Amino acid sequence: MSQIEINSARLWARIMEMAKIGATPAGGCNRQALTDTDLEGRNLFLSWATAAGCEIRVDEIGNMFARRTGADNDLPPVMVGSHLDTQPTGGKFDGILGVLGGLEVVETLNDNNITTDHPLEIVDWTNEEGSRFDLAMMGSAVWRKSMDLQHAYGCEDRDGRSVKSELERLGLIGEATTDRNYKASFELHIEQGPILEHEGKSIGIVTGVQNMCRHRVVLYGQAAHAGPTPMTMRKDPMRALGNILPALYEMTNEHDPAGRITFGIIDALPGSSNVVPSMVEFTVDIRHPDNTGYGQMLSALVEIVIEKAAEVSVGADVRKVWEAPGVVFAPECVEYIRAAVDKVGSDAMEIISGAGHDSCAVSEIVPTAMIFIPCEGGLSHNEEESILPGQAAEGVNVLLHSVLNAAKN
Amino acid sequence: MSQIEINSARLWARIMEMAKIGATPAGGCNRQALTDTDLEGRNLFLSWATAAGCEIRVDEIGNMFARRTGADNDLPPVMVGSHLDTQPTGGKFDGILGVLGGLEVVETLNDNNITTDHPLEIVDWTNEEGSRFDLAMMGSAVWRKSMDLQHAYGCEDRDGRSVKSELERLGLIGEATTDRNYKASFELHIEQGPILEHEGKSIGIVTGVQNMCRHRVVLYGQAAHAGPTPMTMRKDPMRALGNILPALYEMTNEHDPAGRITFGIIDALPGSSNVVPSMVEFTVDIRHPDNTGYGQMLSALVEIVIEKAAEVSVGADVRKVWEAPGVVFAPECVEYIRAAVDKVGSDAMEIISGAGHDSCAVSEIVPTAMIFIPCEGGLSHNEEESILPGQAAEGVNVLLHSVLNAAKN
Repeated sequence: MSQIEINSARLWARIMEMAKIGATPAGGCNRQALTDTDLEGRNLFLSWATAAGCEIRVDEIGNMFARRTGADNDLPPVMVGSHLDTQPTGGKFDGILGVLGGLEVVETLNDNNITTDHPLEIVDWTNEEGSRFDLAMMGSAVWRKSMDLQHAYGCEDRDGRSVKSELERLGLIGEATTDRNYKASFELHIEQGPILEHEGKSIGIVTGVQNMCRHRVVLYGQAAHAGPTPMTMRKDPMRALGNILPALYEMTNEHDPAGRITFGIIDALPGSSNVVPSMVEFTVDIRHPDNTGYGQMLSALVEIVIEKAAEVSVGADVRKVWEAPGVVFAPECVEYIRAAVDKVGSDAMEIISGAGHDSCAVSEIVPTAMIFIPCEGGLSHNEEESILPGQAAEGVNVLLHSVLNAAKN
Repeated sequence: MSQIEINSARLWARIMEMAKIGATPAGGCNRQALTDTDLEGRNLFLSWATAAGCEIRVDEIGNMFARRTGADNDLPPVMVGSHLDTQPTGGKFDGILGVLGGLEVVETLNDNNITTDHPLEIVDWTNEEGSRFDLAMMGSAVWRKSMDLQHAYGCEDRDGRSVKSELERLGLIGEATTDRNYKASFELHIEQGPILEHEGKSIGIVTGVQNMCRHRVVLYGQAAHAGPTPMTMRKDPMRALGNILPALYEMTNEHDPAGRITFGIIDALPGSSNVVPSMVEFTVDIRHPDNTGYGQMLSALVEIVIEKAAEVSVGADVRKVWEAPGVVFAPECVEYIRAAVDKVGSDAMEIISGAGHDSCAVSEIVPTAMIFIPCEGGLSHNEEESILPGQAAEGVNVLLHSVLNAAKN
């Protein structure tokens, strides 16, 4: 096979056209799962995939599969894809690159009249982000049966609308998946971190995903009037917070650079500027690639919160609300990517993903690996998320050759 | 004059009846300014005041005045009163005691066929709490002309309804006040702090109110994905908060027991558990009775926030959004109260109010002082706010004799 290449201009034009759907004034995208704009984005993708000769299938949680036939359609397909939904103030590339990169692989094979032995499937997973509907990576988890379909259907947004009612409204409930037999799965994604940029590498060969979890912490104090109550007689959850935060950052520092801690949501109740709060609630996201370090961080979180709160007569509750264990990707898929990197001539490094991806669920039943490209400043989940057309093209070329390597019988 | 006493049973029954309007399941009250329940509470008060022979007047900001004639109605009246509105999760006594205590003074004078030389006026000030409409102590400030009427009218709640439209809807816009000549003004109130209880005193003779202000602080970081972004490469406003809070509590500790700091509202944006926030906003309420200490706290607030934020590459903005300077009450009114305390035989102490009250604005143009009674555990702005019937009665008896002392020609 000669050295074929993807069409960089077509790829970029499509990414930019997709970015117009739900475009935000600050240059990002707000195309949250199962909104009207999500449907619009899906339909644009479907129109392109259909024009490229793919056959479309939608499953019972709205995941979309676009299939390109192979030389032997009894062989298990090779899967490529990611997600088209975004954060409320998300960027243009997170997820989208993987779906439209998959489409570009198909287009390039069409352009070059190549029929792979195994069929190919491009997938768009439903609700990867978990921002509107809290259960992140929902579509891939339901597909893999690690999340119960009815549980996912019942998940509600802040306005009380359920996943099921929104799927129905948008006409996105299809047939249940019966065949989960795939040869391999690849997901191209922006790194969403600064490591590749920092190391001057253009491709990350992702060998696994770190452990991650989300906690909800509640500090219980006592509401009191801001004026007359002496400081020493207060049970002030904000004082507890002021002791907890530095201790948790310091604890995380002991796990640097592997450990990560993030406080993304915080609220004080009753929420009046002249009332000492009765309660402060916040989320704690903890990540670590190594099981031992991860376990130490989780234990320390509970110990520190309870101890520091008690020191200022504040009660505390720490509850783990979501967890995704670390993943080690399939060595054969990592090998397909490594061979593709050699073919494309990329400067690559092995990397562990700090973020969760649909590939985590997929990898439990299908040999899977991921490809990263750098994004500017490592910024993601941010309207300023940015990559260059050449970086996108290089990633898709590595994806193309990884697929070609895997799709041979 | 013989030693007359108020009717404790009637007073308590009326407080309990008022507390049914907007009663919360947890035993408190939600009767926020210019809601339907506020109107219902006002109407209940008016029905009692009218039955007690008072003449009612409503001014252009909805303040209600119930006047009892004196022996010489050309003499300036003595004012008693407070407010009937509550916090969203408020108690049964904050404000209400002062209004219904004023009514009980009138009833007791009626029962004893006493006509004071000066007329009396019971007042219910509009929107003291400032929880629904942000401009606290609105009614008294408009009355005193320290707040522009149109500015108050334009103030909107979170649903965009203005003070003016709500006053109109409830039929509460009356005639502009023309005569602000009063002999004296007294406001009976729960302490809303634990000092009287702690000192074992049943009456606080309030000689002034501490300086107070409200700031809005914004910390500007950079949104980033919670997983892939190494801790050392983040601009995390929560990390800044973790350094700012302990420093501000320690700074306040240097001003103990006079200085007070409260963080009542906090929010992180964009508010997603797996996104490092781009921004954290919070309120800072600072109080100090002494001008020097108060000034030092305000300077330290700005310095600490800017410095601690900069240390972790986070931007900061500190803006004072509201301020009420400290007040020294009129010595003659303090003296009327002291004489009343002697007559009633109360165990009293002088005290500085930590909270702002309508009396602050009133005192700028009318000789004014306040009377405090203890509340259980110092709790206020809290559904568990609690006083005993005997404590309420003792406070109203001191109010009664203070009024009698002042209303003599």
